[in-house]
Amino acid sequence: MAEDQSRLLDFACRLADAARVETLGRFHQGCAAENKAESGAYDPVTEADREAERVMRALIEQHYPEHGIAGEEFGEKAGQGPWCWSLDPIDGTRAFVFGLPSWVTLIALLEQGRQVIGVIDVSRLDERYVGGPAGARLLRDSGEAPLRVSNCTSLAEARLTTTDPALFGADEVDGFGRVRDRVRLIRYGLDAYGYARLAAGTIDLVIESGLKPHDYNALVPVVRGAGGIIADWNGGDEFAGGRVIAASTQTLFDEAAALLA
Amino acid sequence: MAEDQSRLLDFACRLADAARVETLGRFHQGCAAENKAESGAYDPVTEADREAERVMRALIEQHYPEHGIAGEEFGEKAGQGPWCWSLDPIDGTRAFVFGLPSWVTLIALLEQGRQVIGVIDVSRLDERYVGGPAGARLLRDSGEAPLRVSNCTSLAEARLTTTDPALFGADEVDGFGRVRDRVRLIRYGLDAYGYARLAAGTIDLVIESGLKPHDYNALVPVVRGAGGIIADWNGGDEFAGGRVIAASTQTLFDEAAALLA
Repeated sequence: MAEDQSRLLDFACRLADAARVETLGRFHQGCAAENKAESGAYDPVTEADREAERVMRALIEQHYPEHGIAGEEFGEKAGQGPWCWSLDPIDGTRAFVFGLPSWVTLIALLEQGRQVIGVIDVSRLDERYVGGPAGARLLRDSGEAPLRVSNCTSLAEARLTTTDPALFGADEVDGFGRVRDRVRLIRYGLDAYGYARLAAGTIDLVIESGLKPHDYNALVPVVRGAGGIIADWNGGDEFAGGRVIAASTQTLFDEAAALLA
Repeated sequence: MAEDQSRLLDFACRLADAARVETLGRFHQGCAAENKAESGAYDPVTEADREAERVMRALIEQHYPEHGIAGEEFGEKAGQGPWCWSLDPIDGTRAFVFGLPSWVTLIALLEQGRQVIGVIDVSRLDERYVGGPAGARLLRDSGEAPLRVSNCTSLAEARLTTTDPALFGADEVDGFGRVRDRVRLIRYGLDAYGYARLAAGTIDLVIESGLKPHDYNALVPVVRGAGGIIADWNGGDEFAGGRVIAASTQTLFDEAAALLA
């Protein structure tokens, strides 16, 4: 089984390679965004999103036709057996549209609903964060290195990030404000890249709400493989509610979760 | 004089090359941050900030001993004559400390207080945005291209950025909220990189407050050289108040400025 998972992780990296061709080739090229939101909102999607998901789905159907697939742009395909791929071709489409380098491709493999392999591929930066049962690593063209979270145990010393402070609901915004007022530094706008840098030890805490399965599935093996904590706001695995905290240590997680409660 | 300025722009690029050695060599290497703020606040500075400014000052003193220098970390050195360099070795030290790629080195040359040459050097991304009397260009190892702002003329279609919504004063926050509520998309956390991407046409509007001379001097020639508008909130050149709007078109600038007033 360990050997199986090593082969599946290699395959996940092949999916990321294929997605890069579609995304990087359109980045900074005036790739037009359309609005996929309903009723007044604006939720951009580009040809890069669609083509990257299309090539990943085609590779999975070719090599693992019995696996299920759940992708952000083209929905769910039921599989036969325990395995299902979760795909977000471009997490951070807003960053992509702004010409910023922090957008990523998210790839996860689930076994009976449990995230066992995750890839956060930061194409523009040539940084690929992979996690699984054997731990987590950062892969670059120039080599690879193990990922390890920081040892931060106190909000007073913590580097916090969240994608957009306006995304918290009315029942969440006060709790987030209590955390924000206690941390050393805060940055915004990173989407999944914040979790990648948490795994790498340069961010200590990520707090978000409203995440969908294709947003969070790939993060779990990377953060846990790097020794970090990732859980719902109650400390459990109920990610389906969309509320996620990632922290470099359990002590830091608990301090943040208590203020959010 | 045009020839002089071409030579001075080449020299500004040599300064950026020298700064890169000091900054990139320490990025992701656990370069420790100290706190340079007084009384309770936290304003990080690293060895990378100090060493990058030191090498740039040394080069200027060697090649142009009569020029003045004003740097973020080591203060002002009066010159003899009209020329003065404005240096910010790492704009976005918070991004640097978070391991994010959006920090930049800012270099400007002023002639009798007027910004004539600007360099926004995004070392981690190998993107160097330069501006001067001959226009603005993006220089990369792989080649160069002219910079040109977008043709966005309406808040309803605009991509807006500001570094941190919490940095607006009590008399500014409502006006900023009025703009934010009308734009299509907003991103945070970019410091000077937002102006660089405005010059490149992937961001349409930047609104900030509290900028210091070393923050804004280099932006002016780049944004104007790319055909964009950069001015204080009243539409003038009174940048010393720290309130800056950059916009891809005058129409967009005016729409934002009216809501901020």
